[in-house]
Amino acid sequence: MNVLIIHAHNEPKSFCSALKDLAVEDLRKAGHQVRVSDLYVMNWNPVAGSEDFGSRSNPDYLVYALEQRKNHEAGTLAADVVAEIEKVQWCDLLILNFPVYWFSVPAILKGWIDRVMISGVFYGGRRIYDRGGMRGKKAQAVFTLGGRQHMFGDDAIHGDIRTMMRPLLQGAFGYCGFDVLPPFIGYHVPYLDDAERAQILHDYSAHLSELDGLDPLPMPQMNQFDEQLRPISD
Amino acid sequence: MNVLIIHAHNEPKSFCSALKDLAVEDLRKAGHQVRVSDLYVMNWNPVAGSEDFGSRSNPDYLVYALEQRKNHEAGTLAADVVAEIEKVQWCDLLILNFPVYWFSVPAILKGWIDRVMISGVFYGGRRIYDRGGMRGKKAQAVFTLGGRQHMFGDDAIHGDIRTMMRPLLQGAFGYCGFDVLPPFIGYHVPYLDDAERAQILHDYSAHLSELDGLDPLPMPQMNQFDEQLRPISD
Repeated sequence: MNVLIIHAHNEPKSFCSALKDLAVEDLRKAGHQVRVSDLYVMNWNPVAGSEDFGSRSNPDYLVYALEQRKNHEAGTLAADVVAEIEKVQWCDLLILNFPVYWFSVPAILKGWIDRVMISGVFYGGRRIYDRGGMRGKKAQAVFTLGGRQHMFGDDAIHGDIRTMMRPLLQGAFGYCGFDVLPPFIGYHVPYLDDAERAQILHDYSAHLSELDGLDPLPMPQMNQFDEQLRPISD
Repeated sequence: MNVLIIHAHNEPKSFCSALKDLAVEDLRKAGHQVRVSDLYVMNWNPVAGSEDFGSRSNPDYLVYALEQRKNHEAGTLAADVVAEIEKVQWCDLLILNFPVYWFSVPAILKGWIDRVMISGVFYGGRRIYDRGGMRGKKAQAVFTLGGRQHMFGDDAIHGDIRTMMRPLLQGAFGYCGFDVLPPFIGYHVPYLDDAERAQILHDYSAHLSELDGLDPLPMPQMNQFDEQLRPISD
């Protein structure tokens, strides 16, 4: 497999960064090709703006998603974005590796999603979900957070973690047609002792060795919706 | 009321920007004080990094949330962040006004949340939800999207819109103790004709005139959870 890891932590010695390093090492040992985009090291620009476009379909009124598609077709999209798109096209498995900020991805990673996952390549019109541009590829979220596992669940204080992460798991990964693997989660990370952290690394290593056997999360199936994307009744 | 609008659209002539302009006009006419942070115009930096800190509690290992709190106490937090914190402290109602990117906020706005909503002021330890630092203030999300209303709901293709927006509504607003007003949503915006857009502006104007009568969304109540934030059984 070709594996692309997008990493977004501002401390190279963090536990989250150790998860990234472990994945690189384990996956290479298992014979996979691995590339890493380390967004903080790259000084990645997260702002979706007119500077991304070397030409403009409409110079007077910016419709960002439209210009993404048009500029990609014209070869005038920002070079940093094009480089990331090519990495995603190369990969069989995309891993986003990040600390949870506000029940979501850090802004630098949100800006990777906003700028890289362009119309025409990742999705377009009704080419979404199981008809999305990324079908045949897998995607996985790997994240660390401060909360404990018991704070997440249907009756827990913050609710179900996969529901909290749905904008990423379904709204981004699933929407583009990736097979969405179950996320790997490191809970309570800032408060763990060395043995507890070692256990999570051990668990992640086991998880990585079993990627092929993981069932993807359920996603909407386009054949259950009509042309207007309304549910088809029985 | 003092109202702070955080606006995050890269096209000043966009419909989303028109919603912001309408809110400024209507709220001022109604006698409220209104301030606007227009993030694209401000060239807001969304990246949460070590550059935000003029001093370091631990120079060798960055724990971003910890340094946010320590630097705020020491008066060494980045000036752009301090200015936004003071605006939030001034306001009675916080409005985030944005186009939906990937079922979430654009990165530039995510970076406002990441950098501004600091530990010690917005939340801290078990000072969350109805004990959060922002209790007594209101918050509202106002957003535009391309999807139609029938694409959202329990049986709809993308699921319930408030669930999709839960990281913002509960995970950020609710978590900090804001009373979270129901979001105002402009559906299908890129595809509407002038009359349909005028109708949404009209509806938003009516919504703004009725803010006082809106019931906040339900959020977790801290007295229903124990010291470990486990649900208290009957």
